[in-house]
Amino acid sequence: MIIGIDVGGTNARALLIDPDSGQIKDRCQTLSVGTGPELVTALTGLINQLRTSETTAVGLAIAGLVNRTGTVHYSPHLPGLLDYPIGPELQKDCGLPVAVSNDATAGTWAEARLGAGQHCDNFAFVALGTGIGAGFVLNGQLVLGAHGFAGEAGHMTINAQGPTHVTGQPGPWEYFASGNALGRLGQEAAAAGNFAHGLAAAGSAQAITGQHVSTAVAARDPQALEIFDHYCQEIARGAASLATLLDLERIVLGGGLAAIGEPLRSSVADRLPTMLFGAFHRPEVEVCLAQQGPDAGALGAALIAQNQDASKKDPQ
Amino acid sequence: MIIGIDVGGTNARALLIDPDSGQIKDRCQTLSVGTGPELVTALTGLINQLRTSETTAVGLAIAGLVNRTGTVHYSPHLPGLLDYPIGPELQKDCGLPVAVSNDATAGTWAEARLGAGQHCDNFAFVALGTGIGAGFVLNGQLVLGAHGFAGEAGHMTINAQGPTHVTGQPGPWEYFASGNALGRLGQEAAAAGNFAHGLAAAGSAQAITGQHVSTAVAARDPQALEIFDHYCQEIARGAASLATLLDLERIVLGGGLAAIGEPLRSSVADRLPTMLFGAFHRPEVEVCLAQQGPDAGALGAALIAQNQDASKKDPQ
Repeated sequence: MIIGIDVGGTNARALLIDPDSGQIKDRCQTLSVGTGPELVTALTGLINQLRTSETTAVGLAIAGLVNRTGTVHYSPHLPGLLDYPIGPELQKDCGLPVAVSNDATAGTWAEARLGAGQHCDNFAFVALGTGIGAGFVLNGQLVLGAHGFAGEAGHMTINAQGPTHVTGQPGPWEYFASGNALGRLGQEAAAAGNFAHGLAAAGSAQAITGQHVSTAVAARDPQALEIFDHYCQEIARGAASLATLLDLERIVLGGGLAAIGEPLRSSVADRLPTMLFGAFHRPEVEVCLAQQGPDAGALGAALIAQNQDASKKDPQ
Repeated sequence: MIIGIDVGGTNARALLIDPDSGQIKDRCQTLSVGTGPELVTALTGLINQLRTSETTAVGLAIAGLVNRTGTVHYSPHLPGLLDYPIGPELQKDCGLPVAVSNDATAGTWAEARLGAGQHCDNFAFVALGTGIGAGFVLNGQLVLGAHGFAGEAGHMTINAQGPTHVTGQPGPWEYFASGNALGRLGQEAAAAGNFAHGLAAAGSAQAITGQHVSTAVAARDPQALEIFDHYCQEIARGAASLATLLDLERIVLGGGLAAIGEPLRSSVADRLPTMLFGAFHRPEVEVCLAQQGPDAGALGAALIAQNQDASKKDPQ
């Protein structure tokens, strides 16, 4: 049994997992606030709640730049973890081996092993949430990169003349295609008098979020569908760059926005060929929805921890 | 001994190579024009010129979308090869096993084995020429992608509001950072009265090429240096996206433009951190110059052919 924990900006969600079947045996959560040592104490609390005599390892999933030895270099949503060796510290505190992964990297591996990436050797997992996280499986292997930072697709430049993002970079993909971007598109449309449904639901243009737009899309509101169409074009633009760069067979759309479902999938799939280099001369790139939902990060972190645990026991 | 041939838009350059040392034993070339069958006849001619009794395989490097079984899906500079199975046809004609690779992918492997990518498990090779080709080594392995098309970094979108490229896509990296782009920047500067040196050398603004700019850069012409500075910023922008996506340790600059040398390397290296997500929280990404020069494609194709030849003989 492995414990997988997804440490988000607000909550830490822990799962007790049978890594062979991926079955979730138990779960609990707590707030993910405070300094590094405070968070370690809170996480050990979660671990002790779930732990059985058969628990052999812990996998942590954390948004941001997390290196292979378990130190968080930079996590925009967890400022208390800056340069903090959370992996080694948690390992000391709870007494189990701890493997730390980027949350989107972990989600990628969950989809590869148990979800929409199964039987596919070359795919990208794209988590559309507040920002955009991503991960890659290439030639059947999870891509970690030199330090474990691979997959920061939300920060590739898509529009060099575009607005400056919170990161200081101009026009990164997540500025245009994250859940926050969908909310901004809704606000802009409402301010221009083109999103009456959203304005009524939110009370003011500034209060519109991505959720208001997706609710209106589900209700087939024509103005929301127009906003959404533009939004899916921005997703497809970045997805096309990834597929062009890495010759992917499949793009798996995950994260909170994947709850929109088929309208999201089909709209991105329809636009992808128009943006893909040499689209008429290459096999189609499939677009599909993630299958592991909000548990993907914790589940993937547990599966990665299982691999590391097994490789340490391997006499080779 | 392996024969490596780089089939460019104008010439096909063939090398006889000792793949263990990378030593070039002999070379010859011919024009690369005509239909697929005509090109096969010409290539067999090159092979017969170089071939010894110890020659076991042929590696072909070709620009464009080339699949793992040796069919050219699409090659902008070799329209006669559209959907042509050049690998199997050449194999029939010359009687040796033939492995076909994308030219930048082949160049990447040449640098990995014998050049600037040695002892580096995660790097990108970026070939700056008429366009931009690229290739990746991740976790010590050459990235081919699902079909063999990986590395088309020149066609990732960098400026979605930018001009439409010959491919039909708006604002791809090679529009801004290829050798052609350097020429265009020189033309624009000259037309605005800001590149007297280039205007004098070329005779007219429209006649200015990247070569005129690089010659003037070598002569430390201040106007050329300004053009060049802007050009290197565009290279760094795309290189930063690649490093962010894949967590690279190193960017190897190759292709014809690499002949500019240290001014190119240092200018890109200086700008990279300003464009890299989380640059202050991650180890430096090294920028260096390719070492294999214009032979990289043929050399890498030979080294890839050697691997395939060896794996076929392997009883596993």
